[in-house]
Amino acid sequence: MSSNYRNFRNSVPWLILFLEAVFIVLFMFADYGERVSSRSYPAFKDVSHMVIFGFGFFLTFLKRYRLSSTGFNLVIVVLGVQCSVLVEGLLVFLLQRPNEERLIRITRAAMTVTAVVISTGAVLGKANPVQLILMTVVEIIVFHMSKWSNNTFLGVPDDISMMHVHLFGAYFGLAVASRFSEPSPRSEKNASSPKSDLFSMLGTLFLWVFWPSFNSVLAADNKSKVIYNSYFALAVSAVTAFVLSVLTTKDGKFRMTHIHSAVLAGGVAVGYAAHLIKYPWIAMILGLLASVIAILGSYCSQSCLSPALKIHDSSGVHFTFGLPAVLGALAQVVLFIIEEWTNVPSLGYSVLLHIGAFCLTVSVALITGLITGLILNLKLFKTAPISKYFDDQFYWEFPHLAVGF
Amino acid sequence: MSSNYRNFRNSVPWLILFLEAVFIVLFMFADYGERVSSRSYPAFKDVSHMVIFGFGFFLTFLKRYRLSSTGFNLVIVVLGVQCSVLVEGLLVFLLQRPNEERLIRITRAAMTVTAVVISTGAVLGKANPVQLILMTVVEIIVFHMSKWSNNTFLGVPDDISMMHVHLFGAYFGLAVASRFSEPSPRSEKNASSPKSDLFSMLGTLFLWVFWPSFNSVLAADNKSKVIYNSYFALAVSAVTAFVLSVLTTKDGKFRMTHIHSAVLAGGVAVGYAAHLIKYPWIAMILGLLASVIAILGSYCSQSCLSPALKIHDSSGVHFTFGLPAVLGALAQVVLFIIEEWTNVPSLGYSVLLHIGAFCLTVSVALITGLITGLILNLKLFKTAPISKYFDDQFYWEFPHLAVGF
Amino acid sequence: MSSNYRNFRNSVPWLILFLEAVFIVLFMFADYGERVSSRSYPAFKDVSHMVIFGFGFFLTFLKRYRLSSTGFNLVIVVLGVQCSVLVEGLLVFLLQRPNEERLIRITRAAMTVTAVVISTGAVLGKANPVQLILMTVVEIIVFHMSKWSNNTFLGVPDDISMMHVHLFGAYFGLAVASRFSEPSPRSEKNASSPKSDLFSMLGTLFLWVFWPSFNSVLAADNKSKVIYNSYFALAVSAVTAFVLSVLTTKDGKFRMTHIHSAVLAGGVAVGYAAHLIKYPWIAMILGLLASVIAILGSYCSQSCLSPALKIHDSSGVHFTFGLPAVLGALAQVVLFIIEEWTNVPSLGYSVLLHIGAFCLTVSVALITGLITGLILNLKLFKTAPISKYFDDQFYWEFPHLAVGF
Repeated sequence: MSSNYRNFRNSVPWLILFLEAVFIVLFMFADYGERVSSRSYPAFKDVSHMVIFGFGFFLTFLKRYRLSSTGFNLVIVVLGVQCSVLVEGLLVFLLQRPNEERLIRITRAAMTVTAVVISTGAVLGKANPVQLILMTVVEIIVFHMSKWSNNTFLGVPDDISMMHVHLFGAYFGLAVASRFSEPSPRSEKNASSPKSDLFSMLGTLFLWVFWPSFNSVLAADNKSKVIYNSYFALAVSAVTAFVLSVLTTKDGKFRMTHIHSAVLAGGVAVGYAAHLIKYPWIAMILGLLASVIAILGSYCSQSCLSPALKIHDSSGVHFTFGLPAVLGALAQVVLFIIEEWTNVPSLGYSVLLHIGAFCLTVSVALITGLITGLILNLKLFKTAPISKYFDDQFYWEFPHLAVGF
Repeated sequence: MSSNYRNFRNSVPWLILFLEAVFIVLFMFADYGERVSSRSYPAFKDVSHMVIFGFGFFLTFLKRYRLSSTGFNLVIVVLGVQCSVLVEGLLVFLLQRPNEERLIRITRAAMTVTAVVISTGAVLGKANPVQLILMTVVEIIVFHMSKWSNNTFLGVPDDISMMHVHLFGAYFGLAVASRFSEPSPRSEKNASSPKSDLFSMLGTLFLWVFWPSFNSVLAADNKSKVIYNSYFALAVSAVTAFVLSVLTTKDGKFRMTHIHSAVLAGGVAVGYAAHLIKYPWIAMILGLLASVIAILGSYCSQSCLSPALKIHDSSGVHFTFGLPAVLGALAQVVLFIIEEWTNVPSLGYSVLLHIGAFCLTVSVALITGLITGLILNLKLFKTAPISKYFDDQFYWEFPHLAVGF
Repeated sequence: MSSNYRNFRNSVPWLILFLEAVFIVLFMFADYGERVSSRSYPAFKDVSHMVIFGFGFFLTFLKRYRLSSTGFNLVIVVLGVQCSVLVEGLLVFLLQRPNEERLIRITRAAMTVTAVVISTGAVLGKANPVQLILMTVVEIIVFHMSKWSNNTFLGVPDDISMMHVHLFGAYFGLAVASRFSEPSPRSEKNASSPKSDLFSMLGTLFLWVFWPSFNSVLAADNKSKVIYNSYFALAVSAVTAFVLSVLTTKDGKFRMTHIHSAVLAGGVAVGYAAHLIKYPWIAMILGLLASVIAILGSYCSQSCLSPALKIHDSSGVHFTFGLPAVLGALAQVVLFIIEEWTNVPSLGYSVLLHIGAFCLTVSVALITGLITGLILNLKLFKTAPISKYFDDQFYWEFPHLAVGF
């Protein structure tokens, strides 16, 4: 390893430590709601479990990058949660909003971090820890600003704009990924093994089981409906994932990548509209469409999109989270129109607001993502060389090298 | 692969898609209880976690069949839950029963699916996905009919007849398995490796921790007692599993198969009677007996039962779920007699009803299981050749073949 | 294997069975609180999940000792819980204390068992199952006596003295470990592999997510505050773990051992004082210090402490649980002084009581641990030979020996 790189390495911990010190100092000045209730703890625990454990193992599908996937995910999540709590505290202070209960605040922070975790999926194995941490801080701040704009200028309520988290995460991540060099197509490290597929399945099933919790956290009075609709959307998208995987592969076999991404697509899509859906069959059709989009998307991208745009999306976040979220946003508008059909005067305006919020979120994500990507690829942050992409050994001590990996 | 088989493969997804479409259409006509409460969500989440994650990994003990075990389990569970909700909706409609809350309904559906998951264990690695899915649909319908008969003709309350789920699943699965060809005894695929044992342990521990939830879901007013008794039965059966494993193996070592099956036996056995048990020591003795039965059963079967009956029970569901459930049903009758000793006039009749319900469930399971097994082995459904038993590569794409499995 | 050893092996199961029979008989005489409520079930489930699943996989980092780690952990926990319930029942009977609810009693029992699980970490791979089980019974009894002394003579409330569980477990375990022979330094079994590191990470993340539950179980009226503080302490200690790992290793890479132990250190340290901490930044600093102590401790010990004291601490419980608990106890005293500064008269006395409780716990742990270690190494209990340390094959049947481990 060049001494240059070693120097860089030695500066990494100080950067993180500095960031953590700043966070602690800021926490000293942050004023905290003292209202006490542990009623929202189960919801917080579920979301925390999802982002720490579920996503941590969801991303372990690369055979030589499993320690980094779970390890870096932990760091990103905990830094992101702290950052998000601080930004929200600042907004509460600046905008004189009422102070919320503490546990609700960290639950929202953990939900916000989902955006970062999804973005990480797009640059998985390519970005080094410093780049990931900087991306985390920038993305959290930008997402809060985007949410605040949606809230203030377009009047989108908070529980709806929080559901933009998948959309924002996916497109921010893709924009960042577009600035990273593509891995060599013949790289044998950029692949999964049956074992890493199994670990990834473990994370996927965890996310699958907890997804209805995620969708229902912010639902106020119709939690039960949101949970019910989310479950059926997830169920149908799991079935469809297996069906389409057989149809799109040679020899009619299942492909693990399809399963991983498509089983969750239904949950993402239904997140926006679960509180509006009256009958489960609507949620089921949404789940089916989400899964179709996820798998056809991944099928097309390999042949056309990716070579054209030159974006390498490590874990297919575009198809798992991006496109299903677009579908969900669309479904929300359609369902809203059907529901409010009689309220003719304000309908057009409301629909415009919904579409505006969607466009605002996507464009903010793409633009700031692109800028972030450019900044992260400055020489200052020493992108890992392409030959070291997807490699745990670049980041972790392996005293056990002789042992079969 | 013969073109014949490829043709079959290409028809598989359309069959599943057709089934899913039927489900969605039926859901359109199903009338849903609109009563709203998310109080029962924790119970539902626990049961869902058990069937999706717990059983999914419980079945990963075959070293070359781990992706299929977890993957197919997911498909079976989600199709089974949809099917079960529809069948129950139909019963509610036909019998003019009061409409229940939505979340309670899917919780019961997830519990019902346990029967299918257990049956799957008996044909694990032998049945192909189409056979598994058909088995799921048939089994769910038959189990509901059996439960309905128990309810209507024998007056067994719903929370008791739901506990027949292990009994029904085990014997239905064994009957189906009896129609499948036995794997070659020298097949090296039909074995576990230390790694697959560890994954299976992961699922087993999950099931172990959540089992008291399962037993207490339907307990109305004595949840706390059911949880307490279930925990102690499970605890003692775990201890006994280790003890007996040492006693029944050469060299006095532990055998993982014993541990996997016997640690859960106590939970299965105590399920029937947990609400009747006044003192934990009774639950503990029940757990001990269940574990003894599970391990001695597996010990005997290898030497006498299996060669005689020619049934190959892939994951030993007979000993893990079947025999402990028989013990539990017996214990329930005995405890019922002791409790109601003074109510002499109606005692004999009640006992007869209990035994009748048990016999009805087992015989329905065996007969319909046998018929299902015969149908599944029609040439139409293309049983996998014996040489492809227990093999992920038969069903999943392996672009990573070179990597050490 | 010598016939002598085989004889010993054959006596093992009878010993365990005898113990279990004694437990069942004692349970017959134990009087049980009949007060019924399942409100405390979520807390119990979380703690049970932690000790069974979280610690079970936390300890799987040894590449050849993964089945034993999870398997023996299960036996120890279930025996320990039964033993603890009995000892507490005896105390309730002898001291005429009010009877508590059943579920609360097993929750406390599961928390108590944490001490044993931590001690197990110190002798992991060295002690055989009989030694572990004897250690469990002795440690549970001694810990209850130590808690009772703290309670009676020093007036320490129950929820505080329960937090001594990490302290007690770590020092008891170290004292026991000091009586076991050290493994050969060149033993290649005493090492982790990337795969076992990943399994251990799985357990670690589980513990991380559930730790706030553990700390808040006994908190009466300020659960929400305890959860919030615990989360931030854990978050900062996770960040610090990564930072310090880079600083203390060659080449600036991360070391998994550091991550495993240090991410939890914050949760251990904050356990004592979480209910006293008013602002999260205090918890964050505590988490930072705990992580520093954990990693610097492990750094120093390899070069000085361990050669001097000749204690081989298999999974570094001294740094993961021991030192952070000392820090936590110290922090509690300091915070107590700050809070009660105005109540001058009783302050000094109260501080003395706190310090007394700390010293009492540590010295009881060390003395009884040493005695237990001496007893366990009697020839009667046949310590495993050093060459068989850290080896699953010594305890488990491996019909699959040919398969790559």
